[in-house]
Amino acid sequence: MQRALTLAATPGLDLGPNPRVGCVLLDAGGATLAEGFHRGAGTPHAEVVALTNARHAHGDDAARGATAVVTLEPCAHTGRTGPCADALRDAGVTRVVYAQPDPNPAAAGGAGVLIGAGVDVVGGVGAEDARELNRVWSTAVELGRPVVTWKVATTLDGRTAAVDGTSRWITSAAARRDVHRLRAEVDTVLVGTGTVLDDDPALTVRDADGPQPLRAVMGRRDLPATSRLAAPGPDGVETCHLRTHDPHEALAELWRLDRRHVLLEGGATLAAAFLRAGLVDEIVAYVAPALLGAGPPAVGDLGVTTIADAARFDLVDATVLEPTTDDLSTPDGPASGLAATNVRLTLRPRKES
Amino acid sequence: MQRALTLAATPGLDLGPNPRVGCVLLDAGGATLAEGFHRGAGTPHAEVVALTNARHAHGDDAARGATAVVTLEPCAHTGRTGPCADALRDAGVTRVVYAQPDPNPAAAGGAGVLIGAGVDVVGGVGAEDARELNRVWSTAVELGRPVVTWKVATTLDGRTAAVDGTSRWITSAAARRDVHRLRAEVDTVLVGTGTVLDDDPALTVRDADGPQPLRAVMGRRDLPATSRLAAPGPDGVETCHLRTHDPHEALAELWRLDRRHVLLEGGATLAAAFLRAGLVDEIVAYVAPALLGAGPPAVGDLGVTTIADAARFDLVDATVLEPTTDDLSTPDGPASGLAATNVRLTLRPRKES
Ligand SMILES: NC(=O)c1ccc[n+]([C@@H]2O[C@H](COP(=O)([O-])OP(=O)(O)OC[C@H]3O[C@@H](n4cnc5c(N)ncnc54)[C@H](OP(=O)(O)O)[C@@H]3O)[C@@H](O)[C@H]2O)c1
Ligand SMILES: NC(=O)c1ccc[n+]([C@@H]2O[C@H](COP(=O)([O-])OP(=O)(O)OC[C@H]3O[C@@H](n4cnc5c(N)ncnc54)[C@H](OP(=O)(O)O)[C@@H]3O)[C@@H](O)[C@H]2O)c1
Repeated sequence: MQRALTLAATPGLDLGPNPRVGCVLLDAGGATLAEGFHRGAGTPHAEVVALTNARHAHGDDAARGATAVVTLEPCAHTGRTGPCADALRDAGVTRVVYAQPDPNPAAAGGAGVLIGAGVDVVGGVGAEDARELNRVWSTAVELGRPVVTWKVATTLDGRTAAVDGTSRWITSAAARRDVHRLRAEVDTVLVGTGTVLDDDPALTVRDADGPQPLRAVMGRRDLPATSRLAAPGPDGVETCHLRTHDPHEALAELWRLDRRHVLLEGGATLAAAFLRAGLVDEIVAYVAPALLGAGPPAVGDLGVTTIADAARFDLVDATVLEPTTDDLSTPDGPASGLAATNVRLTLRPRKES
Repeated sequence: MQRALTLAATPGLDLGPNPRVGCVLLDAGGATLAEGFHRGAGTPHAEVVALTNARHAHGDDAARGATAVVTLEPCAHTGRTGPCADALRDAGVTRVVYAQPDPNPAAAGGAGVLIGAGVDVVGGVGAEDARELNRVWSTAVELGRPVVTWKVATTLDGRTAAVDGTSRWITSAAARRDVHRLRAEVDTVLVGTGTVLDDDPALTVRDADGPQPLRAVMGRRDLPATSRLAAPGPDGVETCHLRTHDPHEALAELWRLDRRHVLLEGGATLAAAFLRAGLVDEIVAYVAPALLGAGPPAVGDLGVTTIADAARFDLVDATVLEPTTDDLSTPDGPASGLAATNVRLTLRPRKES
């Protein structure tokens, strides 16, 4: 299983909406027959890759009587590829050991199919490591919607801009670099029409190795024709305009577009709508050591009027972001917010206890 | 000098408005004749203690031809005790080595007096360590006013209470314990009349070893006769009511009362007044992983309308305050703010560069 997990974690893959999966085929004596891992949407699943490799190396009957060790319960549905449970059974595999059960609560995984076909099935071996490998994907599939991370850049007194609307730059250059890292980890970046009208953001990833995230805007107003989001992105992809005020509806549409992880970048109105709907799975807050005393707040009205109803989270990480020598030599000079030391706080909804 | 610094740092002293000072007297051969350290306001200075000890051990002329090693430039003024520069000269000390120069910009220290009397004087040896030993006192004497630390307890979105005014408890039990530690380090705790009327705080130190800080209130309204601050404190000391809106005037009065370190505990109006006057030397912010979306802000209007004018600080420390098992078993239960993990951020005004 350790080897299967390592295969699954192969770096440099563009998985799209799919999970990382690794598979090792063993003969009756426990020797490795073949290996495989999934390379992303539209490509064969790990089990199929391993079966194909086994056939190439050892002939058509290679997998007869073999054991398949796989990091995720083999699928039972026909997607862009056929069901893996059938493929394993048809190849004559007699034993399947898997780590993580299929997280989709609606669709059953392939374990039942395999057991029904007389295959010896063991599940849950190394399940925690396997889930961690696909943490966001697993949560998204469990929830049946994209996971939402809300990113906010704020002063110590919870302001995201000054009274006149200026906000460049509240946080440091290091914090802004970190936001680009965050964007590179998600498949969708979402803002409200208010932010487009006020800030005209580009929402692209600087120095990205992988694909650019989908740029999405929520709200009923049209985007100004001259706004950066009205033009196709660096990858030629159009902005996705979600003309609704209902966060559930917006996420359902993004789910239909195979989105698994949305970075909600504001503004305060949109963030409040997602928080009120209970649709924020993680908060990443960049806090600048500055005070404004007035100006737009980090989050709009949450309908909370008394302290017992405050939206409570668990603090899961606090990281100090030191300025680099580059930041200290910006034209704005060390006195600007760009050269400051910021703190990044990561919060998750409180677990029931 | 190392020995003199160790003497100065003797634990368990109640220094009051005075600095920690240590002194070692050496004979012509470099052997220790006597030692001394200052025990606080109203008691003899370190040099005088060392001279007295030398006389007791070695007779009246013990210090003739001796070298005095002292952590602070000997004083030249007659306070509750006579000037140390005179005492050293009169005792026949021929060489004085000191660490920190007298930080009082108005009053000259004793170095000049000693040089004028033909004593060989060397200053600045270990000056940084000596200043660190009396960091707050040195800053206060340099500024000619008490040092001000502003403490604020806030949600991630910069609220200090909910819309209905409830604020118990925004921050965790561990954060509140930490505030008691802070109070024990200062000699004065200050709030506005607004906080007295809204919260009726006690402003005492729980489980204090040393003396309670002076409780001070700023504002023109009377304190309600039934408020806790209207009664004498646990030490029998009355609350100091500063009937002014001018932070400079309030600090001048506290200085006259021999105060060196004020913990400004709110509310937002008073904090804003001190910030606008440039009279906040340190911010200690307890940030709870919670959102309110509305409610009283951490700080009132600072007169800032554009981002370039934001009040900028240096982040000097970020500490995660974990809940203890005690906190987790509070009657409020782990779901309340008391059992949360909070972050303490310490900020200081930006250094010119
Ligand atoms: N510091 C940061 O991290 C950060 C990040 C982003 C933005 N900001 C700041 O936030 C400001 C913009 O704030 P904002 O609140 O106006 O922008 P916003 O939340 O981006 O957009 C608000 C608009 O979104 C639409 N909308 C979509 N769903 C909605 C719902 N459920 N309820 C209500 N409206 C909904 C509405 O427009 P329609 O009328 O078109 O439907 C609404 O006017 C900018 O000044 C920007 O600088 C700060
Ligand atoms: N979370 C925290 O860390 C924390 C700490 C403390 C308080 N609080 C909250 O803060 C709230 C109270 O806020 P607040 O702003 O009303 O209280 P405040 O700042 O304690 O008191 C304001 C009052 O102080 C007087 N004052 C003194 N100097 C002033 C000046 N330069 N300018 C204007 N007024 C001056 C005025 O009263 P006169 O009319 O009497 O002159 C004014 O009404 C409470 O609800 C409390 O819960 C929170």
